[in-house]
Amino acid sequence: MAAALRGFRYLVGRCNKHDFAYVSTRCLASKTQVGFVGLGNMGNPMAKNLLKHGYPVIATDVFPESCKEVQELGAQIVDNPAEVADKADRIITMLPSCPNVMDVYTGPNGILKKVKKGSLLIDSSTIDPAVSKEMASAAEKLGAVFMDAPVSGGVGAATSGKLTFMVGGAEEEFNAAKELLSCMGANVIYCGQVGTGQAAKICNNMLLAIGMIGTSETMNLGIRLGLDPKLLAKILNMSSGRCWSSDTYNPVPGVMEGVPSGNNYQGGFGTQLMTKDLGLAQDTATTTRTPVPLGSLAHQIYRMMCARGYANKDFSSVFQFLREEESQ
Amino acid sequence: MAAALRGFRYLVGRCNKHDFAYVSTRCLASKTQVGFVGLGNMGNPMAKNLLKHGYPVIATDVFPESCKEVQELGAQIVDNPAEVADKADRIITMLPSCPNVMDVYTGPNGILKKVKKGSLLIDSSTIDPAVSKEMASAAEKLGAVFMDAPVSGGVGAATSGKLTFMVGGAEEEFNAAKELLSCMGANVIYCGQVGTGQAAKICNNMLLAIGMIGTSETMNLGIRLGLDPKLLAKILNMSSGRCWSSDTYNPVPGVMEGVPSGNNYQGGFGTQLMTKDLGLAQDTATTTRTPVPLGSLAHQIYRMMCARGYANKDFSSVFQFLREEESQ
Amino acid sequence: MAAALRGFRYLVGRCNKHDFAYVSTRCLASKTQVGFVGLGNMGNPMAKNLLKHGYPVIATDVFPESCKEVQELGAQIVDNPAEVADKADRIITMLPSCPNVMDVYTGPNGILKKVKKGSLLIDSSTIDPAVSKEMASAAEKLGAVFMDAPVSGGVGAATSGKLTFMVGGAEEEFNAAKELLSCMGANVIYCGQVGTGQAAKICNNMLLAIGMIGTSETMNLGIRLGLDPKLLAKILNMSSGRCWSSDTYNPVPGVMEGVPSGNNYQGGFGTQLMTKDLGLAQDTATTTRTPVPLGSLAHQIYRMMCARGYANKDFSSVFQFLREEESQ
Amino acid sequence: MAAALRGFRYLVGRCNKHDFAYVSTRCLASKTQVGFVGLGNMGNPMAKNLLKHGYPVIATDVFPESCKEVQELGAQIVDNPAEVADKADRIITMLPSCPNVMDVYTGPNGILKKVKKGSLLIDSSTIDPAVSKEMASAAEKLGAVFMDAPVSGGVGAATSGKLTFMVGGAEEEFNAAKELLSCMGANVIYCGQVGTGQAAKICNNMLLAIGMIGTSETMNLGIRLGLDPKLLAKILNMSSGRCWSSDTYNPVPGVMEGVPSGNNYQGGFGTQLMTKDLGLAQDTATTTRTPVPLGSLAHQIYRMMCARGYANKDFSSVFQFLREEESQ
Repeated sequence: MAAALRGFRYLVGRCNKHDFAYVSTRCLASKTQVGFVGLGNMGNPMAKNLLKHGYPVIATDVFPESCKEVQELGAQIVDNPAEVADKADRIITMLPSCPNVMDVYTGPNGILKKVKKGSLLIDSSTIDPAVSKEMASAAEKLGAVFMDAPVSGGVGAATSGKLTFMVGGAEEEFNAAKELLSCMGANVIYCGQVGTGQAAKICNNMLLAIGMIGTSETMNLGIRLGLDPKLLAKILNMSSGRCWSSDTYNPVPGVMEGVPSGNNYQGGFGTQLMTKDLGLAQDTATTTRTPVPLGSLAHQIYRMMCARGYANKDFSSVFQFLREEESQ
Repeated sequence: MAAALRGFRYLVGRCNKHDFAYVSTRCLASKTQVGFVGLGNMGNPMAKNLLKHGYPVIATDVFPESCKEVQELGAQIVDNPAEVADKADRIITMLPSCPNVMDVYTGPNGILKKVKKGSLLIDSSTIDPAVSKEMASAAEKLGAVFMDAPVSGGVGAATSGKLTFMVGGAEEEFNAAKELLSCMGANVIYCGQVGTGQAAKICNNMLLAIGMIGTSETMNLGIRLGLDPKLLAKILNMSSGRCWSSDTYNPVPGVMEGVPSGNNYQGGFGTQLMTKDLGLAQDTATTTRTPVPLGSLAHQIYRMMCARGYANKDFSSVFQFLREEESQ
Repeated sequence: MAAALRGFRYLVGRCNKHDFAYVSTRCLASKTQVGFVGLGNMGNPMAKNLLKHGYPVIATDVFPESCKEVQELGAQIVDNPAEVADKADRIITMLPSCPNVMDVYTGPNGILKKVKKGSLLIDSSTIDPAVSKEMASAAEKLGAVFMDAPVSGGVGAATSGKLTFMVGGAEEEFNAAKELLSCMGANVIYCGQVGTGQAAKICNNMLLAIGMIGTSETMNLGIRLGLDPKLLAKILNMSSGRCWSSDTYNPVPGVMEGVPSGNNYQGGFGTQLMTKDLGLAQDTATTTRTPVPLGSLAHQIYRMMCARGYANKDFSSVFQFLREEESQ
Repeated sequence: MAAALRGFRYLVGRCNKHDFAYVSTRCLASKTQVGFVGLGNMGNPMAKNLLKHGYPVIATDVFPESCKEVQELGAQIVDNPAEVADKADRIITMLPSCPNVMDVYTGPNGILKKVKKGSLLIDSSTIDPAVSKEMASAAEKLGAVFMDAPVSGGVGAATSGKLTFMVGGAEEEFNAAKELLSCMGANVIYCGQVGTGQAAKICNNMLLAIGMIGTSETMNLGIRLGLDPKLLAKILNMSSGRCWSSDTYNPVPGVMEGVPSGNNYQGGFGTQLMTKDLGLAQDTATTTRTPVPLGSLAHQIYRMMCARGYANKDFSSVFQFLREEESQ
């Protein structure tokens, strides 16, 4: 873990060498207005953290009622993304899926209708990297900079400002993005060109899903073979079977405290959301002609779980899905 | 990790409470003769470590030439397992697969033909736990104790005495087993009743295979999406995608030093051996009616790799198998 | 279909050339006593058909009440398989799984305890071909002939004498077996050496399971894409997607009449039985080191269905399992 | 099969009832000019068949050399799709993939730039049904009718005019489409609203891929279990394992004549093309949230085959891919 953290510091450090080359006045004009589009479960606490850090926020959302809380905390609410772009040259967007992102950027009332030259547009939605690239290219034609910066961590991390941002885009703009993202996250990692933030997020979640299903079926098999679940978890965690799902987020009730498996799979990261991310992983794999046999099967298993009533349970409930029904 | 180690110490500690109840003279008669059957790649260095620790060894192997080395180091060589059992009341067996184990124990010249009452028989082969239970039951009828104690760690760990033993069998016999196994391994873990040592080994290796294939396809996907492999590995290892295959044994050449991926997948743990262990996992899952979708697909992928010429490469070569052929 | 039937007649015809070489008096002594072990759902109607064809039947079953019906029809009931072998030199066995077969043949009251030289033993159970080979080898040592002859077709076909038998064993004994099996089945196919009857059965059922799940997910996908299910079935059945599950046993309610999908998946071939056969397919694939990726996943999907309450529904209920829950 | 053909005639017949209501002069003006965009391996013989049936053809292709053959046969060649639309009110397009279709219809020199009101636009490309719907909606705004009509059958069927067309679009326009498509195909099937032609094609090919891989692994398993491949194929084809891949296009060399397996997997339907279609199936499944576990694994297996050098072999070469390498 220490090594991993060192690695992280190195990554961030790497970007500093470009500071000297950074000429935009945007970044220097700290604490000027920041636009925010998308005030849902994640966007709301993120915008609040910007306000907390002293940034004036100009926000909008398709659902007016979503705007109330941040308005009460001092944010200015406008009608649509184009108006946000009219008033702010740094904008963060946090939206549920590709079509929303395309609409917010390139739609009739989209950001790009009124974006100013030199603006910094940061999209924290989790979407197909190909769409991120399209948006970046459309923004570039208007002289603006688009970066993708999807997050890892849920509503809790968004509230406490402990998100991890994986950022793709021009390296010389990374520090400007980091200035804002640091208000909302504990880790801000530069990943490479536009779309690589999405790529990193998608890759992590695909491997996470594989690890979670793998851990669940392994624990289930071990239990049926007569092993005590806590003991099996300990053995795996000392050995080469170790993974985040076995040592940090174990799916078997009673093995670990403070995780959704101990709370009837409430809270955590919903099966439906994981399924969406696995769909994105599958899409990018198909586009890049990459074989992802386990990722693909993981996608299908979560898809079956959604069809069988597990959509809103934490994704570790796959242990429950695979286990024999109690009534049998 | 610290927690895991604590867990491990606890496990071992748990067994000590039984010391007082332990009455066999076997254990007290330390440094009396130890039998050893199976002097292959693993058995040879294991037997040598017993000799190094001062135990007189009585050994046999179906291939006489395999016996030379330990004979030169002082071991007494006999003709067959029955003769080993005639001369030693503590015997360790290390064999390639189920039929060998059945032959060595219950065959016409098998251990059980001449086993003495009260003998301790420890099988370190990796086999179906159902066979371990059968052998234990046959031994018990003759008044002997059988324990399964498969290992994790390869020839290197066997040579340096750093194996991990996962032990199944009567808890009150664990200390007697541990006395011997500690000469050959760094970790000796009590897993439960007979067969649970095998179960733990099989479960770990199934999850390992899933993690390795998952890491390989994830790294491949990330690279095709434009991510630097070292950077992707770092991000995964800081995040919930982290697993042993990503942070300790990364399958992508150049990401990590001192692992088979940096050496054209030479050495390490062969694809064929992993395939055998996945076959055992599948067998036990079928017998216990446990769904293991990813474990089963992992098995099939390694099976395809064996069919396509990867049998003797390290199991991390699945990265190479999934990657586009260079000639294309 | 005509070609296939021609193929079938050819197969049967091929065997006739051996008639002249056939010397056993067993076959000539037509309508002498036939033994029958295992009077379950399948064995009962099979034994009745032997009686109907004028064969005196000597039968046994572990559950005495299973014997009543055939006893009333004139069969002689004895205590155990050994007594059957004492009284009959042609015996048919129909048992649920490998351990039963081993017990009935090689157990303490097994057939082989009293089998006469030259006896013909036909096992119609569906089991691992390796066990069939073991039984054949044990019988051969006592001068008896063992053949495996698993059936396709369920209770309905057993009752109407329309089963298909797939027969493995010495080709020169095939006609003797066919004489009896023809009383109970419409097709009797010679497959090759001992175990190949099982192999044919297992292979067919594996491909059947793959076709059924494939048809189910394809129909489900088409329906969600806006296709009428009957129309989609017609298009598939005219095209290269055609298979038995699409054109004869369609899993979508309303597409076809007289199949379990039209009757809430009652009757037919239970998911649990299919899962058992897929377990056998997986076992033989593992033993012969054959990659069976789709067969293996089909096994796991049926395994998950058993865990989720589908064990007793027809195996075409996989359509229902994959479809979105109605309550959602 | 007879039932299926009856079904097919019924489908075609169903459409006739709309004849009386059909008022467009397009259809009545038989043998007026027909536009054709995309003269590749498939488009070329298709356009030739239109010419053979007496239709004047106006054609274009991005590669001028592709136009030579049809030009020599009397077709008029123009510079781009817009010019085709300027001169013809019935246009057929046959293009490799989604981006091509979007460009040919909605690009700067696309058909929709100059399309006339009432024009009939038929796209025979195999693409995502969502793109077909987009094109239809764009055409409708200009008063034109768009139908999707992907084909089954390869270059041979295209040459001999024996393709099968699966047609989606307004039912009242089906006869007009059928008039033209009948010149190029033996079967023209109405599937439903726009996009259902693609849906039917994609569904068929997904089930085909599943059947082919399933047949390959089943035949391979049977052979390793000692069955003669021809005999096994016969048994499957008489039984419930029967499918198009087992009875019409068997993947095992020597089982059948006149199929690619008998010709080192040359010709036929390339693995790469099948992989593309499976990618479309996966995309539509992800979009409609449909679980397709076997279809998804089939996709991944063909993806792996592409990565391992099988891209240009017939898709039945999966038998070869799964079989043990001969050198081992």
